[in-house]
Order: sequence, then structure tokens, then C-alpha cells
Amino acid sequence: MDFNAHFKATLDTLKDEGNYRIFAEVERQCGSFPKVKHFNGDDVSEVTVWCSNDYLGMGHHPDVVDAMVQTVQNCGAGAGGTRNISGNNNLHRLLEEELADLHGKEAATLFTSGYVSNWAALSMLGAKIPNAVILSDEGNHASMIEGIRHSRADKVIWKHNDWRDLDRKLKAVGDRPKIVAFESVYSMDGDICPMREIVEVAEAHGALTYLDEVHAVGMYGPRGGGISEERGLAHRIDLIEGTLGKAFGVVGGYITGTAAMCDFVRSFASGFIFTTALPPAVAAAATASIRHLKQSDVERQAQRDRVAKLRARLDARGIPHMASDSHIIPVMIGDPVKCKMLSDILMQDWGVYVQPINYPTVPKGTERLRITPGPLHSDADIDHLVEALASLWKQCAIAHAVA
Amino acid sequence: MDFNAHFKATLDTLKDEGNYRIFAEVERQCGSFPKVKHFNGDDVSEVTVWCSNDYLGMGHHPDVVDAMVQTVQNCGAGAGGTRNISGNNNLHRLLEEELADLHGKEAATLFTSGYVSNWAALSMLGAKIPNAVILSDEGNHASMIEGIRHSRADKVIWKHNDWRDLDRKLKAVGDRPKIVAFESVYSMDGDICPMREIVEVAEAHGALTYLDEVHAVGMYGPRGGGISEERGLAHRIDLIEGTLGKAFGVVGGYITGTAAMCDFVRSFASGFIFTTALPPAVAAAATASIRHLKQSDVERQAQRDRVAKLRARLDARGIPHMASDSHIIPVMIGDPVKCKMLSDILMQDWGVYVQPINYPTVPKGTERLRITPGPLHSDADIDHLVEALASLWKQCAIAHAVA
Repeated sequence: MDFNAHFKATLDTLKDEGNYRIFAEVERQCGSFPKVKHFNGDDVSEVTVWCSNDYLGMGHHPDVVDAMVQTVQNCGAGAGGTRNISGNNNLHRLLEEELADLHGKEAATLFTSGYVSNWAALSMLGAKIPNAVILSDEGNHASMIEGIRHSRADKVIWKHNDWRDLDRKLKAVGDRPKIVAFESVYSMDGDICPMREIVEVAEAHGALTYLDEVHAVGMYGPRGGGISEERGLAHRIDLIEGTLGKAFGVVGGYITGTAAMCDFVRSFASGFIFTTALPPAVAAAATASIRHLKQSDVERQAQRDRVAKLRARLDARGIPHMASDSHIIPVMIGDPVKCKMLSDILMQDWGVYVQPINYPTVPKGTERLRITPGPLHSDADIDHLVEALASLWKQCAIAHAVA
Repeated sequence: MDFNAHFKATLDTLKDEGNYRIFAEVERQCGSFPKVKHFNGDDVSEVTVWCSNDYLGMGHHPDVVDAMVQTVQNCGAGAGGTRNISGNNNLHRLLEEELADLHGKEAATLFTSGYVSNWAALSMLGAKIPNAVILSDEGNHASMIEGIRHSRADKVIWKHNDWRDLDRKLKAVGDRPKIVAFESVYSMDGDICPMREIVEVAEAHGALTYLDEVHAVGMYGPRGGGISEERGLAHRIDLIEGTLGKAFGVVGGYITGTAAMCDFVRSFASGFIFTTALPPAVAAAATASIRHLKQSDVERQAQRDRVAKLRARLDARGIPHMASDSHIIPVMIGDPVKCKMLSDILMQDWGVYVQPINYPTVPKGTERLRITPGPLHSDADIDHLVEALASLWKQCAIAHAVA
């Protein structure tokens, strides 16, 4: 077989569909975010990022930067091993304690990414709880889907955010160990789950609840504990999973729950055991970020204000966007080629960076520009973005019916 | 079901078998490695690490530390998004170029860890090359095994390092796309594969070769390109996978190969697409480390000298260790409880940290102390380690027949 020809042909198909991804190359700089340097070959320009997942700009917070710098200077670059083999720094333990406290749980287990935490924890729970069935919201993230698939446990998909459907399906499963897996904030539509209803249905059926709060930690709840904290439900959820790479501005993932559950996952999950630990400096930076957002509400309030302002301005100009109670504002395009083209024009002509979101991140036909306003976007930034979109809407006569 | 009771009962079984893992808590400090602080509750003592995977101490090299510190100060803590959505820093591209050059390949693709690079690349190749069969060395790492399993491609296991067995099995597969997956240095026994023979057999059958050089990059070959560079075979291997978390002293993983293959994996691998990019500071630190080891042989020579010296001293005292041509010195114990006990005594009484290596990292019955001498271990450190082991050997009357 000519492998390389197969790779090329497959990539050509992707290009023909408009789904080939070109990564915008940027350099974020402390103090000037959300303005960043954009590299385009030899060309370097300044653009404003409107699609960052460093939702609150914490990656540039002085406490976070200082903690990371100091720890690199003290402890060096990497951890030097897996958690089990010489790589377990006391800063990892402190971070795990901080995370357990954030969600009011007994314990936490760190992973190298949010993706790995979902993949490893779900695949382990599904595989090592005999006869388990995993009931998975149909909108769940790729990392959860892959983890469930890898577990080889039976899987039942329930309709997105539909607790009545979940109830029916839990009943149909009967007397087997059941795991209900869902998210609080769904990242691409920005909708928030009916958490209380889901939890009550799961409790009624004796199911273990697995909640992904990746797009909510740091951002919701008085201490940044996520939607489960905001709604006073954290103590009723068995496992809360989150990330250090979005609102906390660093990198890494984690689960929290009972000491026995975290120890169970820690003891058996291949994706935890056989991997180099996060650098101590990353752990220190994440700890600083979590601590800050536990006691400061300024960033969350400023972000909410920016989100509300942008939504109002989009409405005023007739630019359709999906409604939700979260910080994520999807502007629907519905075509991959058009979506990429609009993004390119925004970058080149307006200095506005909004990545096109195409398949497989979203289903085909629901391609979109996904906008994430943060506390560091100024009124002028918002005006400029809305002006750019309004101008494009006029030029391209994009259908207004999609919202 | 009482989930927590199940977790506890499963952990109790692990404890009864002697396979429950307790992580030693250490703090590495720049300038004093391999001496580290060991935390035991409130007790803090100084111990010498003999089981680090920061094989050359590069995690504390001034160039690496400076690059990381400077980049955190300039660019902040995290990348702020996935590679596709605002997280693609120009430092990622520079690192990928450096890695492609290291292995003499057209391109490279970065992952958040070596584990993820193997898992994602093998699962993608196995799934997206129609009708593929993966021929996997029976000693391959957990990350490769999980990747192959996840791909759902047909798998054929060949006997460890046995190219004749590989040849027979390739023949038996017949006219289908074939991927031969193997490692250069096997981390737990320290043995090195017969690479030329394997490559020739694979070529004869038109198979794609997938080589894990995780325990060899930075350490073998005139520029640290691994065993494939040392033996002049890199250009005959289709995909070389490696890590930034061992000899390079940082964290992260990668693959290198043709531009089309890297682009193929980048475009389809879920574990690449749906995860936050490595922090730019990690990329900068790794780039500095690779560049240093491309032109400096001092660390490699010093390490070889330490390895030879320790082996000779162990021989002189009659302490059995597995022979190999690599830097890894396994001292076989063959029992998980005894292995843990010896490790505890070494730590407590001798200030020597060698983690016990038990199941599932090695097969049951082959438990061991795995020693990794580095360029920073002094003659006195070696004397002290050998003295400690000799004393324990006398006390415990450990069988000398296992080597």
C-alpha cells in the first residue's frame, strides 16, 4: 500500500469539503491580551482575540505568572517522572487539595489534560464497575465519548438535556450499576443543563453522576466551583471533572469525588499511571489561579457585563446569535466554506480573530463563529467587532433565520 | 449499587496483593538535583533520586529554565485554547520544526504527552487506514496497546524483539495494509531492539514502521536523535514518536514523519484536536533542551560513564542486575511486597530513592528496583547506593539467581 498517497487523498477530501483546518499562529503577550501578535508567514500584525478559552485572562494574571516563574526557577522545567516514579511533587498534592476544596469533595486526582481526565476516568469506571451501563447525554464532548467507547461498557445515549428521556432510559436499564455522564455548560452552543432535574432523576435510580464542568469552573458559583456550586448541587454529584486550561488559564485536568473513587481511578487508569506528571510550575500556577478566583468575583462580573453588552449590540444590529445563559455566543453560519471565509476576512480586514468552528467540532450544517467575550475586552473592542460583523452581514447577505 | 463500597473493596484487594501504590512526595530543586527534598508528613529530609526519567538532568539546565521563565513572563502561563482555536503559538511551530529536524523528517506534530501521542496516532492510523493490521511487539508500552485497542484494527502480537517471528506473522497477514509498531529502548528491562532487522523485515513486506523512541531521544545518536539516529536508520522508519518529558526534561509528546502523515494525524486524531495546547513556555523550554542536546555530547558521555561505573560496582559486590546496552539498570526482586519493603528501607535508612516497580508496570513476578544513573550522580552517590544495596542484600538474603 502507498500509505502517503492514502494520507494525501484523505486530506484532499477534507479540503474539498471545506473542513481542512489551518491554525492561526498567534503570540499572546502579558499585559496586552486580548490583543495578540498574529503571524502570517513573514507578516506580523496585531489582532484582537475573540475566541480564547482563557475566558477570564487568568493566564496573564500576575499571581499566576509569578507562581509559575518562581517555581520554574526553584524546581526546574519538568516533573522528571510519572506521579508514581519520582515525578510526584508536593505542589501536585497541594493543587489536588485545592481542587477537592473547590468542589467540596474529599479528594481530587490530577491529569495531564481535561481530555485525558474524561477519557481515563470514564473508561476506567465503565470497565471496572462490573456490568455497568453509561448513560451519556448526546451532546457530550469527544473526550467523554472516547472514554466511554474505550471502556467497552454498554452505552445508552439520552436526548440532549432531556431529563425525562434520561428517566425513561434509566428505568429501561433495570437493575444494573448506572453511570449518568453529562456536562454543565456545553461549549459549542453555550447552553446550560437542567442540573437539578438530572441529579434528582439519577438519584431516584441510584445512578452515579459524572459531571463535566470544564467550561464552568472558575466562572460560575461564588468561588468559581462551577454551575454545580452556583445551584447548590455539588454535594449531590458523585464526580465533578474540570480543567485547569480554560478559565484557570494554565493546562491540565482533574476529577474530584470521594477519596475511594479518586484513589480507584488513580490506581487503575492507564492514562494516569503511564504518563509524566504535570510540571510542578504548572501545578503552582494553577493553584494560584484557583485561589485567586475563589476569593475574587471581579473577573466573573466584568465578563458577564461584556457578554451582556455584546449580545445587546448584536441584537441592535440584527446579527443572529444563539441564546443561552452562558458566556459563549455562537453566531451561526451553517456552511464550512462560508464560515472559514468570514473568519479570514475578519482577521485580514478587521484585525479580529474568531476561529471558524467546523466539523468535527460541531455537526455538519451547524458551522459557526463562536465568540467568547472576556473581562479584558474594552467597549471599543466590542464596537469594533460588531461593526465588522455588521459590515460582513451586509456584504454577504447571510440568512438571518438561523438563530 | 454502593459504588464507594466497590471502590474500597477493589482497593483492598490491591493492598492485599502488595500492588497498592504510594507516591513518594519530593521536591526537585535547581542546582541540587539528584538530591531532592523528601516530604513524609511533616518530616522533610534530603534524599538522592536514583529513578528519575529526567535522565540527563536537562529539566534544570540553565538554558531550559531561562527559556521557560522568559516565555512565562512574556506570554503568560497557558496557551489559551486548542491548537485550532486560538491556542496555536508560534513557539509550537518552532518546536515542531526542531523535532522534524532532529529525526530528519519533513514534519512533526506535538501532543500534550508521550502517552497521548502514541494513543492518538496509533488509534488514528489503525482506524483510518482501511483494512489495516497492526503488528505489535509484545513488550510495547501501555499507551501503544491502548491506542491499538482503541483503533479497533486487527492486531497481531509478535514475540518481543523477535524479527523472525515478525517476518512469519507479516507473511501470514497477506495482502493488507500493515503497520509494525515497536520501541527502541524498552523502559523496564532496558533492552534495545534489533532495529535494522526489524526495519528490513518490515520493508520486505511493505509495512509502515511506527517506532517509539521515548526512552532514547536526547540520549543516543550524535545529536540525540535516538537509536534510529545512532544506527543510521531514521530515514528508513516512517514514523518516529518521542517525548519531551524524559531526557529533554520538560513535558509533552510528538510524532515525526512525512508532512502528509503528520497532517493526517493532526487533522483527525481526537486526542490532538480536542485538547488545550501545551503552554508556550513548555514549548520554548523543550526547544532549548533539544537544541542543547543536538550540539552537546557532554551529558550523554557523563551518563554512560555513570552507568558503566554503577554496573561494575554492582558486579563487584555480587548484586544481580539485568544486562543491557542501555542506561536502565533493573535490579530484580520478583515479589511486590519485598520490592516495596526494600524501597522503603532505602528511603528511610539510606536516603536513597528508588521507586519499587510493580504490576501493572511490569508483569507480576518480575517486580524490580529500576535504577537510572544520570550525569549528575557523583562517585560518592554511587558508592553510597552500592553500599546500601549490599547491606540490604546481606540482611535479606535475596536470591542471586534472578539476573
